[in-house]
Amino acid sequence: MCRWLAYSGAPVLLDAILYKPKHSLIDQSLHSRLGVETTNGDGFGIGWYAPHVDTPAVVRDIGPAWSNRNLREISGHVASHLFFAHIRASTGSAVQQTNCHPFRHGRWMWMHNGAIAEFHRIRRDLALAVDPRLFLDMEGSTDSEMMFYLALTFGLEQDPPGAVARMADLVERTGHEHGVEYPLQMTVAVTDGNRLWAFRYSSQKDSRSLFYSTRVDTLRALHPDLRYLWEMSEEARLIVSEPLGDLPGAWNEVPEGTYGVVQAGRDEMRAFVPQAA
Amino acid sequence: MCRWLAYSGAPVLLDAILYKPKHSLIDQSLHSRLGVETTNGDGFGIGWYAPHVDTPAVVRDIGPAWSNRNLREISGHVASHLFFAHIRASTGSAVQQTNCHPFRHGRWMWMHNGAIAEFHRIRRDLALAVDPRLFLDMEGSTDSEMMFYLALTFGLEQDPPGAVARMADLVERTGHEHGVEYPLQMTVAVTDGNRLWAFRYSSQKDSRSLFYSTRVDTLRALHPDLRYLWEMSEEARLIVSEPLGDLPGAWNEVPEGTYGVVQAGRDEMRAFVPQAA
Amino acid sequence: MCRWLAYSGAPVLLDAILYKPKHSLIDQSLHSRLGVETTNGDGFGIGWYAPHVDTPAVVRDIGPAWSNRNLREISGHVASHLFFAHIRASTGSAVQQTNCHPFRHGRWMWMHNGAIAEFHRIRRDLALAVDPRLFLDMEGSTDSEMMFYLALTFGLEQDPPGAVARMADLVERTGHEHGVEYPLQMTVAVTDGNRLWAFRYSSQKDSRSLFYSTRVDTLRALHPDLRYLWEMSEEARLIVSEPLGDLPGAWNEVPEGTYGVVQAGRDEMRAFVPQAA
Amino acid sequence: MCRWLAYSGAPVLLDAILYKPKHSLIDQSLHSRLGVETTNGDGFGIGWYAPHVDTPAVVRDIGPAWSNRNLREISGHVASHLFFAHIRASTGSAVQQTNCHPFRHGRWMWMHNGAIAEFHRIRRDLALAVDPRLFLDMEGSTDSEMMFYLALTFGLEQDPPGAVARMADLVERTGHEHGVEYPLQMTVAVTDGNRLWAFRYSSQKDSRSLFYSTRVDTLRALHPDLRYLWEMSEEARLIVSEPLGDLPGAWNEVPEGTYGVVQAGRDEMRAFVPQAA
Repeated sequence: MCRWLAYSGAPVLLDAILYKPKHSLIDQSLHSRLGVETTNGDGFGIGWYAPHVDTPAVVRDIGPAWSNRNLREISGHVASHLFFAHIRASTGSAVQQTNCHPFRHGRWMWMHNGAIAEFHRIRRDLALAVDPRLFLDMEGSTDSEMMFYLALTFGLEQDPPGAVARMADLVERTGHEHGVEYPLQMTVAVTDGNRLWAFRYSSQKDSRSLFYSTRVDTLRALHPDLRYLWEMSEEARLIVSEPLGDLPGAWNEVPEGTYGVVQAGRDEMRAFVPQAA
Repeated sequence: MCRWLAYSGAPVLLDAILYKPKHSLIDQSLHSRLGVETTNGDGFGIGWYAPHVDTPAVVRDIGPAWSNRNLREISGHVASHLFFAHIRASTGSAVQQTNCHPFRHGRWMWMHNGAIAEFHRIRRDLALAVDPRLFLDMEGSTDSEMMFYLALTFGLEQDPPGAVARMADLVERTGHEHGVEYPLQMTVAVTDGNRLWAFRYSSQKDSRSLFYSTRVDTLRALHPDLRYLWEMSEEARLIVSEPLGDLPGAWNEVPEGTYGVVQAGRDEMRAFVPQAA
Repeated sequence: MCRWLAYSGAPVLLDAILYKPKHSLIDQSLHSRLGVETTNGDGFGIGWYAPHVDTPAVVRDIGPAWSNRNLREISGHVASHLFFAHIRASTGSAVQQTNCHPFRHGRWMWMHNGAIAEFHRIRRDLALAVDPRLFLDMEGSTDSEMMFYLALTFGLEQDPPGAVARMADLVERTGHEHGVEYPLQMTVAVTDGNRLWAFRYSSQKDSRSLFYSTRVDTLRALHPDLRYLWEMSEEARLIVSEPLGDLPGAWNEVPEGTYGVVQAGRDEMRAFVPQAA
Repeated sequence: MCRWLAYSGAPVLLDAILYKPKHSLIDQSLHSRLGVETTNGDGFGIGWYAPHVDTPAVVRDIGPAWSNRNLREISGHVASHLFFAHIRASTGSAVQQTNCHPFRHGRWMWMHNGAIAEFHRIRRDLALAVDPRLFLDMEGSTDSEMMFYLALTFGLEQDPPGAVARMADLVERTGHEHGVEYPLQMTVAVTDGNRLWAFRYSSQKDSRSLFYSTRVDTLRALHPDLRYLWEMSEEARLIVSEPLGDLPGAWNEVPEGTYGVVQAGRDEMRAFVPQAA
């Protein structure tokens, strides 16, 4: 499927996170350890919030991340306090920019690892459930973008966990109607530029891996010699498909059927259960 | 909008038609004379039938045709008795391969110049009218692909002129329901590998230009010195958005509200009128 | 050939300069008025300096600028006090990233409009004149990159005007040895991140157009209602291949055979004459 | 490094060789078993000879082969009696079309797996050894293209094995002058459209893998049930970086320091030793 990474913290050059760690996301594009595929070379995307601009920048391209010079240039010269990065392994839909993550709607960004099982069979029914005014803005052909627009339809901008739960419920019900046993497999990150939500769920209770980073102050105490820890702020938090390195104590698995919120003050983690709309 | 070309005749290297004429389609990609835009640089595509293969090859790319080396290579080494070529000027939808013409379904190819007016407003209603089994195969976001799948829904494979007439009627009715005065503008070429249909129609009776070539034997009599005429077979027929040169007597305008059929035996031309399904 | 733009002033979002003006560089990519070609669709590049990073970011791509979404995203979210932008119309060399401007070497950036006449005939002789240690860093096949590396060879980092004059002299002498009457045609911009030099010169004394902007305080007095003037700082200076609009009093032609320096304090303009090394 | 494949035999649709075998070259682009890298996703190329055209078609692109739709389209509709295919894993030089194999000069094609060690250090010296008239035609920045142009300089068109031996000698001598212990690592295929030469050599006597296929009549006797064997003609011969499947008896290693010739009549295999020019 795919690999992704979300960062929230003090502004940092993107490459401090995307390139410098030993098993960075860019390294994962060629050598994923925990993914279904070892190669994630079917496009990539980054999205970041910049000062004084409401909507995030989203830069996406269709080649592999590992050889993309523009990605390296941008990462080495752009700093952000909140950014997403995603590398794609297509499960069949076209390799094109509009199928690359993150997806954006206004201030909101969304990225996904996983799949809607037998999506081609239920795509039309799901499309009909999207708010007609939002339907116009869908440009690609992925299950991931459809999930985003369903969540928007169900009130993502007002109640992210609730909207995602209603989206998951619709996908499961629609799948079951078409005889699909386990319709949904997802790790999802979504943000409005201030808070960041991450979800780990699958119909089969066997979800793709998802990890969050230990508090930076704790890590620094454990590993005072690691330079990149000092480039990160104390409140920095990373959520990743797979750890960026083997640093003991640095990574914690998000439990099955759980979502977390990264926000000012205290982060939270709660159970995630699909809910009828 | 766009420019296109359809060839039917004895097998000929594609570049004899695509590159060698003075005002070739490739030249039109930079210097269109009759198009709404002079530059058609938002992707291109070619589709051709090869011996012993039922379905046509479709090669599409997102850059300009004029600088594409692969297009030149293929054109200089592939011969075909029936091929399409299309250069695109996007009217807003994404510049991506799945939005490039020609579109293919089984043995069939389709390409289009023009637009559905205010397509974003009626896109969803049109999508609902597509046969659910065909819906799955739509990959892009253009009005042109939607027209193709509506025509397929309405029986393109059995009755091309009738299916296109029913598609046109649906587009016009749906547009009118949304308050669009002139919903449809189109020149369309469609083929099954044997016969070739070309349509010129617009709701406003002010359609984009469309021309067909004079019989080659007639042209040779008029211009015995032109080499490329002798590379073409006597039954060769070209249908083009705009003439490939200034050769007197070579090009005839397809009348407003008309379609033509290029086929073994006698070609035909008839009135085109949208028809309720 | 090409079109380019260089900005120096208070930090500004790139799109304020690249997209918002009426006849912006992006508009020039489709509708150049003063260029040799009206279409500049064979790749583009931007280069900018970011806070706390010595070397500039250089982002280049091979498609047309007008349809490139990533260019728009970056331009709408990145601010810089000094940036270059270039749109390319190839005169024959391959359309590839390493042939797109600006070119970078350490802190330095270079971009060019024009050509070395019959470059293919003298390319090898010029390549031999490049410092062997610098030779390794040339990646593309353009005359423009060769000019940059020759200028670097001749001391660009110590004495930009002198190094460019020695480069021009070498090109002219080498061309003449091969029977080329007018070997060099150039407008060039070069910067180290602090100062910005712009050159207008051609062997034939018939150089491509080059303009610099009037002092912003003067312009504001003339046109108090223009919003984008107020987004620019007082010391803002633009150097462009062709004016970004028809604003009376805004644009001044760089005279034939002249170079200018934009710098802290007083800008300068001086005669440019090739000089033997 | 890379993987490549050369086919000579009765005309066959390219996809019979490129896609249908279990461990096809396209599969190798994601899952190479014998290569230095498992992923070869930094561009690809195919070259084929068509009837009635002297020079081969060369189609190259910069993305991964595995997801490239145009490659699949062409392969499914173009038949040839002699073709090359190459998938690239860059060792540092830019991912661009002009760095993709095969390279072409007139009727000749060349492709390479391996590397000139520390090429950046000796690139300039090698470039100086290229015939000045040929120098103009080099467009990329790879060691592989340089090897081709050196071989052309040394008489490739008259005496392929001798020219390659002189090229290898020059590379080794130049490398040694710069203190490189093992300058050359190569498997190379070269053809003029009639005969096909394949070389396996490395300074260290530890060359990249290279295999040739057993005579098809022998294979059919061993495996009468394999359909793709029957799509190949009796004189069909494949030379490949790694076997296309696990068929017992199908593949034979080209010995270290050896070259082979595939030609009408009897194929040959001989020792390969660099020779002073």
